[in-house]
Order: sequence, then C-alpha cells, then structure tokens
Amino acid sequence: MLESLKQSVLEANLDLPKYNLVTFTWGNVSAIDRNQGLIVIKPSGVPYEKLSLESMVVVDLEGKVVEGRYSPSSDTPTHIELYKAFPEIGGIVHTHSSHATAWAQACRDIPIYGTTHADYFLGEVPCTRSLTEEEIESGYEKNTGLVIVETFKTKNKNPVYTPGVICANHGPFAWGKDAHEAVHNSVVLEEVAKMAYMTECINKNAKEAPVYLQNKHFYRKHGANAYYGQKELL
Amino acid sequence: MLESLKQSVLEANLDLPKYNLVTFTWGNVSAIDRNQGLIVIKPSGVPYEKLSLESMVVVDLEGKVVEGRYSPSSDTPTHIELYKAFPEIGGIVHTHSSHATAWAQACRDIPIYGTTHADYFLGEVPCTRSLTEEEIESGYEKNTGLVIVETFKTKNKNPVYTPGVICANHGPFAWGKDAHEAVHNSVVLEEVAKMAYMTECINKNAKEAPVYLQNKHFYRKHGANAYYGQKELL
Amino acid sequence: MLESLKQSVLEANLDLPKYNLVTFTWGNVSAIDRNQGLIVIKPSGVPYEKLSLESMVVVDLEGKVVEGRYSPSSDTPTHIELYKAFPEIGGIVHTHSSHATAWAQACRDIPIYGTTHADYFLGEVPCTRSLTEEEIESGYEKNTGLVIVETFKTKNKNPVYTPGVICANHGPFAWGKDAHEAVHNSVVLEEVAKMAYMTECINKNAKEAPVYLQNKHFYRKHGANAYYGQKELL
Amino acid sequence: MLESLKQSVLEANLDLPKYNLVTFTWGNVSAIDRNQGLIVIKPSGVPYEKLSLESMVVVDLEGKVVEGRYSPSSDTPTHIELYKAFPEIGGIVHTHSSHATAWAQACRDIPIYGTTHADYFLGEVPCTRSLTEEEIESGYEKNTGLVIVETFKTKNKNPVYTPGVICANHGPFAWGKDAHEAVHNSVVLEEVAKMAYMTECINKNAKEAPVYLQNKHFYRKHGANAYYGQKELL
Repeated sequence: MLESLKQSVLEANLDLPKYNLVTFTWGNVSAIDRNQGLIVIKPSGVPYEKLSLESMVVVDLEGKVVEGRYSPSSDTPTHIELYKAFPEIGGIVHTHSSHATAWAQACRDIPIYGTTHADYFLGEVPCTRSLTEEEIESGYEKNTGLVIVETFKTKNKNPVYTPGVICANHGPFAWGKDAHEAVHNSVVLEEVAKMAYMTECINKNAKEAPVYLQNKHFYRKHGANAYYGQKELL
Repeated sequence: MLESLKQSVLEANLDLPKYNLVTFTWGNVSAIDRNQGLIVIKPSGVPYEKLSLESMVVVDLEGKVVEGRYSPSSDTPTHIELYKAFPEIGGIVHTHSSHATAWAQACRDIPIYGTTHADYFLGEVPCTRSLTEEEIESGYEKNTGLVIVETFKTKNKNPVYTPGVICANHGPFAWGKDAHEAVHNSVVLEEVAKMAYMTECINKNAKEAPVYLQNKHFYRKHGANAYYGQKELL
Repeated sequence: MLESLKQSVLEANLDLPKYNLVTFTWGNVSAIDRNQGLIVIKPSGVPYEKLSLESMVVVDLEGKVVEGRYSPSSDTPTHIELYKAFPEIGGIVHTHSSHATAWAQACRDIPIYGTTHADYFLGEVPCTRSLTEEEIESGYEKNTGLVIVETFKTKNKNPVYTPGVICANHGPFAWGKDAHEAVHNSVVLEEVAKMAYMTECINKNAKEAPVYLQNKHFYRKHGANAYYGQKELL
Repeated sequence: MLESLKQSVLEANLDLPKYNLVTFTWGNVSAIDRNQGLIVIKPSGVPYEKLSLESMVVVDLEGKVVEGRYSPSSDTPTHIELYKAFPEIGGIVHTHSSHATAWAQACRDIPIYGTTHADYFLGEVPCTRSLTEEEIESGYEKNTGLVIVETFKTKNKNPVYTPGVICANHGPFAWGKDAHEAVHNSVVLEEVAKMAYMTECINKNAKEAPVYLQNKHFYRKHGANAYYGQKELL
C-alpha cells in the first residue's frame, strides 16, 4: 500500500538527522496521497536509525490508522489540518531545529533580511499567536494546525509562496509539493533563521530587504518566469 | 561484580564524546545498584578512548572504593549526595557542555521558553547558589551535591520532573532512572541551554512559555496519561 | 576546450561544500582564460555531487554559451562585469556563507579588527549600496557586478589587495588570481566575518586594528617584501 | 638530530586541525631542547597534511636555522622570546582559533567565569597592550614575544599557572611543559573563550568566579596537593 510514498517519506525522515535538523526523535515528516486521501507519517518516538518501510504509518484524514503496527507521530493531527487547509501541498516536516526554534521561543516573525530568504519564502516567516489554555487542553495538536492556518489567513499569506511557519514557544513546520521539498524548505528555514539572528546582532537596526529585491529573487526561482536552474531534468 | 551495570556506565561514558558534550576528560557518568548500595563510576582523568569494563570503579555510599584499580572521578562525592537525597534516580552525568556551562557561569536559571524544554524539564532548570568559602575548602565535592539538594528543596522542585541542574560558576549535572537516561537528559539540557541563549538574543523581553503549554508537553511524554511514543517496546 | 581550466573550476566548486561554504547549490565558482576571453563557470542549480568536467559551461564575455549543455549560473553576468573591470583577477566565487551573508544582510562593511583579516584583506571588506528598483528589474545580475565595481572605485580600493566584497541584503563575492585562490579567499572572508561578529559582541566599542599593524600583516604575506611561507614551491 | 622532539612537534602540529583550532596554515607549534638550546618548529606556510619529520625546522635561540630545508614559521622570533623569558616551558602553540581571536580583537582579558577556566588558568587570560608603530615596523615578531613577557611581568602573573595569553588585535599563544601540553592548553583556551563570550551574552553583569573557587579547582589539578586524575600513569 502506497509503497512509493512510504519510500519517499522514509527517505525524507532519514534526511532530518543528515541535515542536522533533529536531536533524538524530535522531528517527523509526512506526505499525502491526494487521490486516496491517505497520509504516510513517521511513527511516534521511533529513532531514525530504526525506521524502515514497514514502520511507516498510514492514516486517513480523520487520523485513523489504516495501516502500520505503530502509533503515528503525536503531531499527526497538526499535519492533517495543514493538508486539509492547504490543498497544494504534498509533504510536511516538523522539527525543533535550533535557530528556527529560538525564533519561535522569542515569539517573533523571522524578518526577510536578504536574498537567501527571498529565494524560498516570500515575505517574513510568520510566527503564530500563542494557543489559549482551552485550545491546548482540548485537541492541542489539531489546534496547532488550526492556528497555523489562521495565521496564513489573517496575514493573507499564500502557503505555496511562504512554505513554512514557526509556532509560538514551540518550533517550525515547513512544507512543499512533496516530502523531499518539505525537507528542503526545512533546511532553508533553519539557515534563514540562523542568518537573521546574526544579522540583528550585527545591526540592531537592520531593515528588511527592499520589496523589489525580494520579488526579484523569489521569482527568479519560482513561477512562469523563473530562470534559475536547468529547464530540463539532469 | 555488577557487570551489567558496569557495561551500561561504560557505554554511557562513551556517549559523552559522541554527543559532543565533553572536551578531553571533562565529564563523567555513574549509575547505582540500589539493592547493594553500590555505585559504578568513571575513573578520574582517564580519556574516554581508554575506558574499558575493567577501568570502571565501584564505590559504596561512603565513597570507599570496593573494586577497581583506579581512583574514581573526583566528583564522586557529589554523585553520592545526589543518590542519597534523590532515591528515584539511578544514573548521574556531569559535564562542562558549552551552553549549559555558560548559563552556570552567568549564574542564572535557564528559563523555560518552549516545548523542547517542557518535553523534559518541568519549569526552569535551576542554578544553585554559590558555595561559601568554607564549603569549598572543606568537602567541596560533597557540598556541591548538598547545594544541589538544597536548591531542589528550597525551590520545591521534584528531581524526577526536573532531571538536571546547573551549579553556579561550574556546570551542569543531569540524571535519570539509569545511566542511559541521564545522558539523554544531558543532551537535552545542552540543547535547551543553547536555544534559551539564542531566544534572549532575538528577544530581550522573551517570556516563559505559558504554564498550560509547559504542562501539556511534559505530560504528553511523562506520567500515566503520556501518549508520545509507542506503548510497547520496539 | 579549456580542459585544464575546467578541471580547476570543477575542483574549486567541489571545495565549496568541503569548506562548509554552501547549503544545497548556493554557490558558484568561475575562472577566466584571458587570452581567449572565455570563462568557465558552474551550471545553474546543479548539485555539487553531480558536477563533472562535462557539466562545466564555457561562456564568452558577452555571456554567450560557447560550450556545454547546461545553462550557466544565473550569476554569470555578475562574474563577467568583475572580470571586465578587474583585469588582474582570474577566478571568482559567490556563496551565501552564513557569517558573511549576515554582514551583507546587516548592510555593514566588515571592520578590520585584527591580523587574520589583515593577512588577506587590506582595510575593511566593503558592503555595496543597495541596488535601485530599476537596477534590479532590468539586468539585475549585471548591475550586481557594476555596483561592486562602483564600490571599489568610490572607496578607492584595489581589488587585488581587497579580494572580496559583500553585496547589501545578498551575500559575499570573493576572487583571486585563479579559482583556487578565489575559494581560499572565500574561506577567509567567512572566518573573518565570524570573528568580527563575535568581536563586537565581546566589545561594543571595539576599534579597528592600528593601520601599521594592518600593513605589517598584509605585506608579510603579499608583495615584493613578503616573507611568510616558502620561497620555492614545496 | 632531535628525532624524538621532532616527532612530538610534528604530532602536535597535526593535532591543530584535528581539534579545529586552525584554518589553512594559521597555526604553529614548537618545542625546545633546553640542554642543547635548540627549538623544533613548523615550517612557514606549509599545509598540515604535507608535514613530515623531515619538514620540521631546527633553530637555535638566535633564530638561526640549524637544520631543515624550509624557512621556519614567521612567528619563530615570538617563540624564542617566550622560551628565553619563561624557562619552565617546553612547548608553544600559536593559532587564530575563532573565539580566542575574537577576544584578542576585542582587546579584552578573558575573565575567569568558572571552573572550566580555573582548572587550567589561574586568574584571567591576559590580553597584551597593542604594539607601537615602532615595535611593529622593527622586529615585529620579536616584539610580540617581548610584549607577552611584559604583560606577565606587569600583571605579576606566573606563566606556569597561566599558560596562555591573547595578543591585542591578533590571537592566542599558549604553552606548556611540552608541545603536547601546549596544544592541550590551546584547546582549553579556545573553549574557555567561547564559554566566556556566551556567559556575557546571557548576563551582561556576570561576575568572575569567587577566588576560593578558582583556587580550589586549579589546585585540584595542579601542584603538590592535586587529587584529580590517577597517581600512576595508565
């Protein structure tokens, strides 16, 4: 069942330690099969070096386990809300990567200080509001997803053009058209968070990059007029 | 004698360089056999790459060497006081890991800024008071243990729910139900210290995570209603 | 065609990940054959591990592809302007290395705080002005080169003695007599940026190194009276 | 000639990249044979991976090359002044390690914030005054040694108990009873510099560790009453 999707989710999970995005089991990747409405996700608390195709968990959009002998990631309800609200995305990553988490703990959006950021994220990487006591005590993981969706709606941001977020006092989520791209964006988010942190240490009054520079870099890599990279696959 | 405990203490000591928690010989792990009242601990000043089962030292709760040809870690009296005062713990780690030590040198508690911290430590990681001149000159290592115990009593903290501390102008101790878990908590403490350091650089007015978020994350992983991870062993 | 130049450009590109200067494909190296007026440069967006002699692209000084099946780096027009304006240089590197990029995002020159800097760069490493909206929307990459050239003219700096620059809200370019030296200078620029960042954290009022110390170190390694290193090749 | 000393100097030089203390060739180690008044030192500008027993250079206390086909490190006159003034030391290391160099560039002593520092260095690690223009232009490297000696005299510090220094706007020198111990102290100096830097970020008003704590830790490891480590060699 969903063997090829499982393979890509397995590989994407194994990429998390490879890119130094995780300590212990602090991260998970999922991907969705939109036709079948099924999600493949990492099992909860299983070390990356013990993961195999067989340990991947398949859940439906209600969170019911359809296949797999393990419990799915405790963050599964968050993934589900994102897949429901953002129909264009195919893969999601959650980590506690150091720099992005520091911004989340600081409860601040990550300002767009340069082209490294603009190559992947249009505008700031938003930080959600804090969840209320009620939201935390009842359906915490689901509400984490809902507050991310709320953040994008309130700020009128397109999740395809800003493929990531940081959750207040928690950490980052990133996504993409598939699990591989979601990991890619997680790596970028961590690097962007690191650079923004240092930028402010170097200049307390640092300003965001000019909007036309932001757009230039983003659309150099994305959309119909993109000219970065190769037209054909290598 | 205590072969299996020695094996676990040996492995836990070897994990310290693996997790980048130590420079040279700056760290030690012990574990206790509560039935026999005996502690296995790293020998003093021996490089990790030269450690073997035979080099582990067995001491009793008075600090007397019961087996082993080496002198035990000079921090042995600290470990003993912790084992005496905290009957639930089975393993202890001391390191000079960079970020936790920086907080210790700054003589500040590590605030609980997010869920990474809350997943393992309930509330701030406390920093002890400084030892007095008298406490340092007579029974320094023992008094280091006593001041840790005093810190937990004064702050009314449960050492099982806050499995670590930083000693003023010195560095961190962490513990757990066994040597392996103690190392695990040492890794977390270092990562939490790093993130808290960056959080304050990003936002000088950063606030601790809401209490209900702290509790949610801690009890998601600990206690009767925990639901993180797998019910059965893998 | 240009086999030996291609080989050196290939090796120099492979040095970028080796020296931790790049994430993914965020960097490129070129070198020029001055006699033929031809430049060898990395193809756009191709991962370093997939690079080969055959994937290198040869362009002329108008940017026309003379050989190679891939599109050249999107930064090619920047390289071309630098080769045109700085006749002494033979190789150019562009990266988004973390610390140099943080200074670029902070829109500040990197002050010359010590001898590590002075061993390679005479005076501060300058930061360009921001490009105007018009410069970005029409011929962005070419204008990036032109603003670098303008910066050196305005500040009356010799590109041979200051073999690098940071572009506002973007990142560093460095160069040298060939591709290998350009990579060498990129590594130095990143290290110098890191040290300057920490220097200011340690002392907000840090002052640049005395001019005679700057000169002493620079000319110990460069020019007719250099005495660092070996007279003959090893 | 001096084969065993050469071997130890070679190994100590190779330890510099192993401990991440150097970029390229930015560091050198020497050791002295006090009976013969001869120093073995790294050749200038030779990459560590190309070093061999044969490439080591032997110089006398006037700096004259007695054996070896390469020019000695350009810092040789600094080493010589230190060997002349500090008769107890047998090995010297100079690097541009990042954190120690940042303190040097900030022109500040490294305060003794904790026991990690006190285990190896009694009191602050001093920063020299800047050299005058005249001192730099005539006999720069020799004067670098002389100003280090002056610093220890002026501050009434014992080079055996404080086995390192940072030179204003330049970087660290460390030493020990032999080349191996000098490298060991260089590693400690870099780590201590890193921790002190972070300590001040965490607490702008951080205070030095109490003097009795400093003494306790230093003399736990050094002198007649030391009790850290093993009495006999392993």
